Amino acid sequence: MKTPRKLRIGVIGAGRIGRVHAETVAYTLPEAELVSITDIDRGAAEAVAARCGIPTVARSSREILAGENVDAVLICSSTDTHADLITEAAQAGKHIFCEKPIAHDLEKIDAALDAVSRARVKLQIGFNRRFDANFARVRRAVETGEIGSPRLLHIISRDPAPPPISYVKVSGGMFLDMTIHDFDMARFLIGHEVEEIYVSGGVMVDPEIGRAGDLDTAIIVMRFSNGVIGTIDNCRQAAYGYDQRVEILGSRGKIATENCYPNEATVSTGSEVRRDLPLNFFMDRYLASFSAELRAFVDAIISGRETLVTGVDGRIPVVMGLAARKSYDEKRPVRLSEIDRSVARR
Amino acid sequence: MKTPRKLRIGVIGAGRIGRVHAETVAYTLPEAELVSITDIDRGAAEAVAARCGIPTVARSSREILAGENVDAVLICSSTDTHADLITEAAQAGKHIFCEKPIAHDLEKIDAALDAVSRARVKLQIGFNRRFDANFARVRRAVETGEIGSPRLLHIISRDPAPPPISYVKVSGGMFLDMTIHDFDMARFLIGHEVEEIYVSGGVMVDPEIGRAGDLDTAIIVMRFSNGVIGTIDNCRQAAYGYDQRVEILGSRGKIATENCYPNEATVSTGSEVRRDLPLNFFMDRYLASFSAELRAFVDAIISGRETLVTGVDGRIPVVMGLAARKSYDEKRPVRLSEIDRSVARR
Amino acid sequence: MKTPRKLRIGVIGAGRIGRVHAETVAYTLPEAELVSITDIDRGAAEAVAARCGIPTVARSSREILAGENVDAVLICSSTDTHADLITEAAQAGKHIFCEKPIAHDLEKIDAALDAVSRARVKLQIGFNRRFDANFARVRRAVETGEIGSPRLLHIISRDPAPPPISYVKVSGGMFLDMTIHDFDMARFLIGHEVEEIYVSGGVMVDPEIGRAGDLDTAIIVMRFSNGVIGTIDNCRQAAYGYDQRVEILGSRGKIATENCYPNEATVSTGSEVRRDLPLNFFMDRYLASFSAELRAFVDAIISGRETLVTGVDGRIPVVMGLAARKSYDEKRPVRLSEIDRSVARR
Amino acid sequence: MKTPRKLRIGVIGAGRIGRVHAETVAYTLPEAELVSITDIDRGAAEAVAARCGIPTVARSSREILAGENVDAVLICSSTDTHADLITEAAQAGKHIFCEKPIAHDLEKIDAALDAVSRARVKLQIGFNRRFDANFARVRRAVETGEIGSPRLLHIISRDPAPPPISYVKVSGGMFLDMTIHDFDMARFLIGHEVEEIYVSGGVMVDPEIGRAGDLDTAIIVMRFSNGVIGTIDNCRQAAYGYDQRVEILGSRGKIATENCYPNEATVSTGSEVRRDLPLNFFMDRYLASFSAELRAFVDAIISGRETLVTGVDGRIPVVMGLAARKSYDEKRPVRLSEIDRSVARR
Repeated sequence: MKTPRKLRIGVIGAGRIGRVHAETVAYTLPEAELVSITDIDRGAAEAVAARCGIPTVARSSREILAGENVDAVLICSSTDTHADLITEAAQAGKHIFCEKPIAHDLEKIDAALDAVSRARVKLQIGFNRRFDANFARVRRAVETGEIGSPRLLHIISRDPAPPPISYVKVSGGMFLDMTIHDFDMARFLIGHEVEEIYVSGGVMVDPEIGRAGDLDTAIIVMRFSNGVIGTIDNCRQAAYGYDQRVEILGSRGKIATENCYPNEATVSTGSEVRRDLPLNFFMDRYLASFSAELRAFVDAIISGRETLVTGVDGRIPVVMGLAARKSYDEKRPVRLSEIDRSVARR
Repeated sequence: MKTPRKLRIGVIGAGRIGRVHAETVAYTLPEAELVSITDIDRGAAEAVAARCGIPTVARSSREILAGENVDAVLICSSTDTHADLITEAAQAGKHIFCEKPIAHDLEKIDAALDAVSRARVKLQIGFNRRFDANFARVRRAVETGEIGSPRLLHIISRDPAPPPISYVKVSGGMFLDMTIHDFDMARFLIGHEVEEIYVSGGVMVDPEIGRAGDLDTAIIVMRFSNGVIGTIDNCRQAAYGYDQRVEILGSRGKIATENCYPNEATVSTGSEVRRDLPLNFFMDRYLASFSAELRAFVDAIISGRETLVTGVDGRIPVVMGLAARKSYDEKRPVRLSEIDRSVARR
Repeated sequence: MKTPRKLRIGVIGAGRIGRVHAETVAYTLPEAELVSITDIDRGAAEAVAARCGIPTVARSSREILAGENVDAVLICSSTDTHADLITEAAQAGKHIFCEKPIAHDLEKIDAALDAVSRARVKLQIGFNRRFDANFARVRRAVETGEIGSPRLLHIISRDPAPPPISYVKVSGGMFLDMTIHDFDMARFLIGHEVEEIYVSGGVMVDPEIGRAGDLDTAIIVMRFSNGVIGTIDNCRQAAYGYDQRVEILGSRGKIATENCYPNEATVSTGSEVRRDLPLNFFMDRYLASFSAELRAFVDAIISGRETLVTGVDGRIPVVMGLAARKSYDEKRPVRLSEIDRSVARR
Repeated sequence: MKTPRKLRIGVIGAGRIGRVHAETVAYTLPEAELVSITDIDRGAAEAVAARCGIPTVARSSREILAGENVDAVLICSSTDTHADLITEAAQAGKHIFCEKPIAHDLEKIDAALDAVSRARVKLQIGFNRRFDANFARVRRAVETGEIGSPRLLHIISRDPAPPPISYVKVSGGMFLDMTIHDFDMARFLIGHEVEEIYVSGGVMVDPEIGRAGDLDTAIIVMRFSNGVIGTIDNCRQAAYGYDQRVEILGSRGKIATENCYPNEATVSTGSEVRRDLPLNFFMDRYLASFSAELRAFVDAIISGRETLVTGVDGRIPVVMGLAARKSYDEKRPVRLSEIDRSVARR
């Protein structure tokens, strides 16, 4: 062992993403170890514990946060619990990895971030896509000047199929549930803040989504503080699968990414030249990025450096989501300062 | 010969595009023949006449229009002459092919279209890109339902380099000079009218363009009457060349086009996998479409069918350009009906 | 006009390729003019004459060759007439462009080349693919050292469908009819001569072809004088169309070409990502190269330089074809020197 | 747990591939567990044991094979030990996963396969590439008839750089060390046996390799029992990285695979359109296939089915390698029956 002691991690939430994170720590991060896990469905927690060799299945998050042998927690429970758990974990002096979004309203977020700030613990938000090889490559092109100064940005982000209506109703709406990843991506790629948002959207996939008060398709125009103009193309349904691409035009060139495919085979027949559909499931598409974000979290704690996705990085996309909704409702461009005069600047 | 008599064509304007059109008629359209040509630079007219075997070099457009042996004219002179020439040609009973745009203001356009309508001659506007194999393929995918009902449209249209400032000043502005092709493309591909336009743009390429009162980079959001939302991405400068792509997301799939390249060779070296830059010059990129649009014009006259790009098709993109400018100036979405209550519907 | 006098060209053979060449001269080569044409089917000659404005339809090739107003001839008649026509044209002092192959046996070829040599006229053989933008780009990569020293070469050359059996029987066999283009390509790309050929082939497409004494599918291995090893992949039938690609591995990298497509559109549906089939017809695929080879021929005559595809370039691929057949029959590698001890070296 | 008891595995050899296999079992195969490991470098074994939680570090392979708690062994030691270890493991009643090749001569292989046969244990050879998503997709296209009956096969298999000369000297030569994977791939993809091999090769990368009695570049032509003709393109050095592709032409179409890349980003600049180099290291390129082959091995034991890569599958590529060398030496096609009259037929 290189480190005198492994970083000891507790896991709150043993659902799909909780299990993925637990496996990452167990199998690929020798600097860390899992010491406890909990879930409101105890069976789920026990299954992950067995699979990943976690010694303790706790009865509650409180029990985990009270554990003296816990250095950090992974908050993988439902969104409505995130803000309170961040606060409690911070007060317990634990470093925190929390899935996105922190919350749907800014007061809750600010209370949680205050707690983190006072406790001086580390907080990383689960914007995993920053760690995807494609988008990381695009960011590198911007940072190194490979394409010159960015001028125009496009983010295409389409889901294979809409979630169940029951989920849509509690999701906080498309902008806070789905676009929030793209808002983070926009800030990450350009490295400057968005000042104004304009939305043109509608209900094109399923009228039920409209009846639930949400939309399912949108073009979002963003104006950045450095003059860059960006668009996000969102649709809850793409017949051909998960469509996740970005393109940046800069003064010296452009960079654009393609989707990821299950294989690199092309078939030519008497009727067409074709290939299999792109990866269809976010877990397959972004698998490596989930692993990379946890490695970065553990590295940040061990090295004492700031995390790569801070609490502020978790807060601003929520401001953007609220601005987007306001623009959609009022059919006009909305400045982020209308939502929140204290929008952080990097 | 299948036709008892060839269609006799006069050419007004012997500049770059006039020469291309003359060659098309001379070399690839056996159903038509060139009978006269004129240009304010008589030497230019004579050179094209020699190359294409045109018997008469006329002293003026009036002389051509007065010619009894002229069935149709190609108006390839400068934009400020288009509307009057259309009117005169219509009054002379000639069929008319006219380069885009008809004019920069609607009154002039309407006067010209009225003359055409009264004279019952055919008018085709030079929106050649409709005849490009790529964009025609996209239109076919929409028409046949191959991708289901369209939801989102993207047009990328970037020039290799900005025109001289002297030209920018008389161009009518980017929206009427450059975007006008994309406005036509949007209507052509979707097959419905745009009702509202929102522009976010700026001066990113050359401050001189800004000082001339124009912009050089823009994102244009269009809302169509059938609910489709579209964007146009315009930039007067793309370091890698001429970038002309479209993408449509429909309910059953998407269709997207790539740029055209001078060859299909890929080189892999110790540092990268690379290919040569895309075609850099609009004459190379769109060569086949210039030929195809003239063939369609001749076919329309011979068959007596409506042209594929009518006077109304020439008028509406001007309305869109004026709406775009208004949106840019007033920083808000602008409905086309604010510009013109009589916007034609297909 | 730059040249005091246009190069006056007579056309022998008004079939498919004769017509293409006539149109090229008529429409795209101002330095040349067509003065006469002939064909055993007089109607065919008359149709091309009308289309291209050729003043004289001659009764025979002899009449054309006797014409004092003829500087050069295009020999586009059937293969069995090529050698004699070359000899006669040379004796008449005309420059000669001749379709491939010169003949199927070396004695006839040598007699024709001798006549050319004695008459000091120019001769260019119709290996048009050298003038294709893709293959020209590959040759440039070799010449400039972009991929270092070549090591391995692959030529894929598959026809959409086999010719009629009646044609197969008089074609000289696949190696002299189809592979001959690839033999020329191999020499052109590598810039060195092939010394040994090994063939593994068979009848996989149509047993009738086998009964006619020919094969329809083959892998041909070539060893060049500079140590490069190459393969040719030939098949008389590719379900997806015309497949024409090359790849060269060099010490510093590789270069590979893709097929040419009618458009650059990609459609993604619920079942696949697809594009339309590649160009299916050699006239479409190689259209620009037919034009470019004639331009080069005219340039060579006007400038007095050697043609880019000489008589020797027409002869060696026939030697290679004969060696390939011998290898196929005897199931062993065959040295070209077994066929012809006088194989020319560049 | 579904199985009453986990499959207990011992690992012989803790080098690069031994460690990869140990991690696969430890982290991704819940049906199996690692019980012991050994290596002639005890420190290497201890490191893997610590990383993967293996309870016992044995002093020798003999100790592992004597273990009553061992159901199966992974033979990951040097090639010269494979045959004897297979024999000993079979005699000890252990199921066997063994890296390729079994040995460089057929007598040793036959002795080992006899022992396996008598002991009725399972044997799987480490031809991992069969489990790669690209090549598995190609095999599926052949099996399902998606491309009709195969006619021509091409395998491109180029290493980024040659191994050290010290390794070349003990490697058994390129055909048994590197091409052996391609020989297996050829049989796997076509599903029929090769009957004859012809090699044209040379020393193009490093004269030292030639002085060591080996070659570094070759074209290998294979004739299959069902008439298919195939080629393998091998080079010990590709400047741009690891080049691993296949293509099959069938009666109804073709299927071809591309290389795998670290990302799907394309950069367009003022000089070129480029992407990053393909994956350069076989461990990265084939990572998933190493995991998949072990899963298949464990599945075969648990289900009682035959392994997907049998002892015969390990033997035939050695016969092919010996035939290839004979062809290279004697400059003629060599039938596999010249090497071994008992070549197995599937």
